[in-house]
Amino acid sequence: MLEVVGLEEARTLVEKRFPFIRDEIETVRLHDAAGRQIARDVIATEGVPAFDRSTVDGFAVIASDTFGCSDALPAILELAGEIDMGGTPSCECAPTTCVRIPTGGQVPTGADAVVMLEYCEEYGDGTIGIARPVAPGENIVFKNDDVKPGEILIEAGTTLLPHHIGTLASLGFATCEVRQRPVVGIISTGDEIVPVKATPVASQMRDVNTPVLAAAAEACGALVLTFPIVPDDFEKLFASVEQALGICDMVLVSGGSSAGQKDNTALVLSALGDMLFHGVAVKPGKPTMCANVGTRPVFGLPGHPVAAYFMFLELVAPLLAPREQQTFVRASLSAGVPSNHGRSEFVAARVEQGDSGAIATPVRGKSGLISQLSGADGFFVVPRNCEGLPVGAEVEVRLFR
Amino acid sequence: MLEVVGLEEARTLVEKRFPFIRDEIETVRLHDAAGRQIARDVIATEGVPAFDRSTVDGFAVIASDTFGCSDALPAILELAGEIDMGGTPSCECAPTTCVRIPTGGQVPTGADAVVMLEYCEEYGDGTIGIARPVAPGENIVFKNDDVKPGEILIEAGTTLLPHHIGTLASLGFATCEVRQRPVVGIISTGDEIVPVKATPVASQMRDVNTPVLAAAAEACGALVLTFPIVPDDFEKLFASVEQALGICDMVLVSGGSSAGQKDNTALVLSALGDMLFHGVAVKPGKPTMCANVGTRPVFGLPGHPVAAYFMFLELVAPLLAPREQQTFVRASLSAGVPSNHGRSEFVAARVEQGDSGAIATPVRGKSGLISQLSGADGFFVVPRNCEGLPVGAEVEVRLFR
Repeated sequence: MLEVVGLEEARTLVEKRFPFIRDEIETVRLHDAAGRQIARDVIATEGVPAFDRSTVDGFAVIASDTFGCSDALPAILELAGEIDMGGTPSCECAPTTCVRIPTGGQVPTGADAVVMLEYCEEYGDGTIGIARPVAPGENIVFKNDDVKPGEILIEAGTTLLPHHIGTLASLGFATCEVRQRPVVGIISTGDEIVPVKATPVASQMRDVNTPVLAAAAEACGALVLTFPIVPDDFEKLFASVEQALGICDMVLVSGGSSAGQKDNTALVLSALGDMLFHGVAVKPGKPTMCANVGTRPVFGLPGHPVAAYFMFLELVAPLLAPREQQTFVRASLSAGVPSNHGRSEFVAARVEQGDSGAIATPVRGKSGLISQLSGADGFFVVPRNCEGLPVGAEVEVRLFR
Repeated sequence: MLEVVGLEEARTLVEKRFPFIRDEIETVRLHDAAGRQIARDVIATEGVPAFDRSTVDGFAVIASDTFGCSDALPAILELAGEIDMGGTPSCECAPTTCVRIPTGGQVPTGADAVVMLEYCEEYGDGTIGIARPVAPGENIVFKNDDVKPGEILIEAGTTLLPHHIGTLASLGFATCEVRQRPVVGIISTGDEIVPVKATPVASQMRDVNTPVLAAAAEACGALVLTFPIVPDDFEKLFASVEQALGICDMVLVSGGSSAGQKDNTALVLSALGDMLFHGVAVKPGKPTMCANVGTRPVFGLPGHPVAAYFMFLELVAPLLAPREQQTFVRASLSAGVPSNHGRSEFVAARVEQGDSGAIATPVRGKSGLISQLSGADGFFVVPRNCEGLPVGAEVEVRLFR
């Protein structure tokens, strides 16, 4: 029999044992790449900007031609031509001349600064009056100034956000290599569990865990396969988990691990592979376990939906998506939380913005049923062996979204 | 010619004018409902729990039968039967008897408390010794204690998170009515814009805005239609926007509004509908405009990709998804930000967790090209007419994810 482990220890055990859930790569269109994890570092193959670029609408000049000019004594420069937005400069900027240029236009050869339009006057005779001097480099971004070729722009494993898609687009990636989405199999077990469509009689419960865990795994970027509800029967659960392992990268079993008569999930996981831990010192969520089957994780999660969801977020989500995707908010407690001994405790909380920072208000219900989370924005963990948390204590709330 | 408006004013104008982008409803399977906005309030049709429920493994008793018992002098109760997880209680709890019950089991008629297993001893002769007294109600959640029938569990418009899916499952919703996803049309315009696949020559630029705005709109739950790049030509842009309006709930045009020679987007938007504003006092993002065409919004966004993305997040995202879906973090500045006059300013920032809260470090590049956002986690706004922000000032960073 394995020892009950702490929450942090459980997380470390699974993260060490399962660094990759699925490391195959696939190529997707850029349009389908948002939210996916990019497979390789993205190296700048081109510099940014690709040419010396004007940051204003105005006239490209040789800066020294403008030194000393003013409203009273403008520098008079001959207009040598005009830069089009989409074209190669068709003219150069020789001494005492200037070239009309739009924002984003390519600075013509010879010019080393751009004067903003508002400081220029067209005299109508092919000359331009410049009323403000510019320093060399003014209003220009030089080629490769922001990104040098060879620079890492996006690290492998990054979950692609809209601006990463923009970076890829700017580099000409019409397709992109991303990690394949891991396939997560979900199985609910328990004699009392009936399908969502059913009307429970007596102490039957609808299968809440399958849709909750499916939605949570999909939010982490996984593909989900759900399996039929399995009764409290060793052979049937063994067969179902084995079937799931044939087509999934990870299997989540919830229920079947009550402290009562039956603990089929533990028996099945032990029979299939090596148990990493069996029991986590956290409330709610104690009957949580993980086994290594081949190289794939099989989790036994609590039957209690809130506990199953919290343990998913704490132990399973880190294997599917980088921690950066989770949102934590530091907040002060609006009410004290009583002490607990020997076990960490999850407390659901509502988070509001107060005058001097975020405020977390614990949301508690006796049943701990999932509908009570409707009033909560996230949860925090009261550490193991902590003497309770007083009003005003700072907690780190993990938001559900 | 319309006045340039402030950022807050622009947001208020669009939110007031376009309270609903699309208010049609569709029915989806529960499995497909995560991330969607629920169409109607979800009312509890059943109470939670649906029956008096044990919160522990143990024996259901009449509390008064245990009063005064102890390790030394246990109360001896006759075992009247056992509650199965999935079944209706087949026995009652009469005075001086007890009933074995698992966690979650339905408390049998007669019992008013449950004694935890660890305080009970089976003598093997059909009697159980109880070593600790329980108070009436102890270890029981009574029917409807947490949720009363008729209570609002999820408000209309809520974006469904995994725990909401759980609430719906627990209530027996195998399908769910959600708001239809709005359809957003995206058009890039400008002579200098070439498709992502093309190799730009001279001052040409790849079309970064279409994929960025598509990913950003999809992240807000929209369906996206992208249209071909339109050159700087009034007739062509007019035709393209008109075509898009035929099939979209909202149209985003980016580019075509440089302060230079051409401002086709403004001309087209004015020709098609009523301009709400033309120009926003924010840097970068000034050439932003919005028109009401019929009852649909058409935005003109800047050609500059960072500005287009930020303006999307500030003005367009609030119409597509509730603000709760955006994540803000309060952080202290690790470096001062210079003053600006008359315009709000967007500053991209990296956010790290410091010892005493989050730290925001401004990320700046001269070109303001989108690849520089790769090092940033979000952005904050320096208010209009602010004297700059000193080191340590608190800012509210809007995270990109």
